[in-house]
Amino acid sequence: MSSKRCAVCKYFRRRCPPDCIFSPYFPPNNPQRFTCVHRIYGASNIGKMLEELNVEDRVIAIETLCYEASCRIQDPVYGCVGLIPWLEHELNITQTQLAKTRAKISFVHANYVARGEPFIQQSGV
Amino acid sequence: MSSKRCAVCKYFRRRCPPDCIFSPYFPPNNPQRFTCVHRIYGASNIGKMLEELNVEDRVIAIETLCYEASCRIQDPVYGCVGLIPWLEHELNITQTQLAKTRAKISFVHANYVARGEPFIQQSGV
Repeated sequence: MSSKRCAVCKYFRRRCPPDCIFSPYFPPNNPQRFTCVHRIYGASNIGKMLEELNVEDRVIAIETLCYEASCRIQDPVYGCVGLIPWLEHELNITQTQLAKTRAKISFVHANYVARGEPFIQQSGV
Repeated sequence: MSSKRCAVCKYFRRRCPPDCIFSPYFPPNNPQRFTCVHRIYGASNIGKMLEELNVEDRVIAIETLCYEASCRIQDPVYGCVGLIPWLEHELNITQTQLAKTRAKISFVHANYVARGEPFIQQSGV
């Protein structure tokens, strides 16, 4: 039985019951995965969060919790939240450039129309 | 003293010491802020995370922890991580549109050059 204990039960040096809530998500061959989320949330909080979820949602929830925990360990100040304003900023810059570039095309188009010339559309763009 | 207890000490019905690690970040007038992070991380883990940080980094760390906790309560499966792939997807779409629109401008520009006409640059775009 001992060799089949999940990473959580192995960490706490306890028997891993057949209905262990952690075992599907924390295999024994990846103990680091659990120590990471345990350090940030604590096993008890993770257990509570799992219990509140439908079984089919638990895999994704554990994935996102592991991701948030590893980000928080790498960056204890911003965690994964640091990525969100950075992406929003990049998106804003790109949207502004796109709007300006489209305005430039409209300007060129209007020039063509004013001269009575056809505006050649490049296919696929 | 009782009325000046921070939200954390108030929650645990204990005296709030002058050097309380939580009091600068959890004022008594916003108890919800603490209950939210406490539900996800637990007060003990938050205290440990604060102790590991420089004092000047703690305000931002608590802000990001509160944000992550509120996202996790709103969306127990994805938490704030759900926003990251969505923003990355939006950024990819916008970058692709920008590249196509720029290619269109290059095509129009090349047309002007081929005809020996000057390409009129619209100011500011």
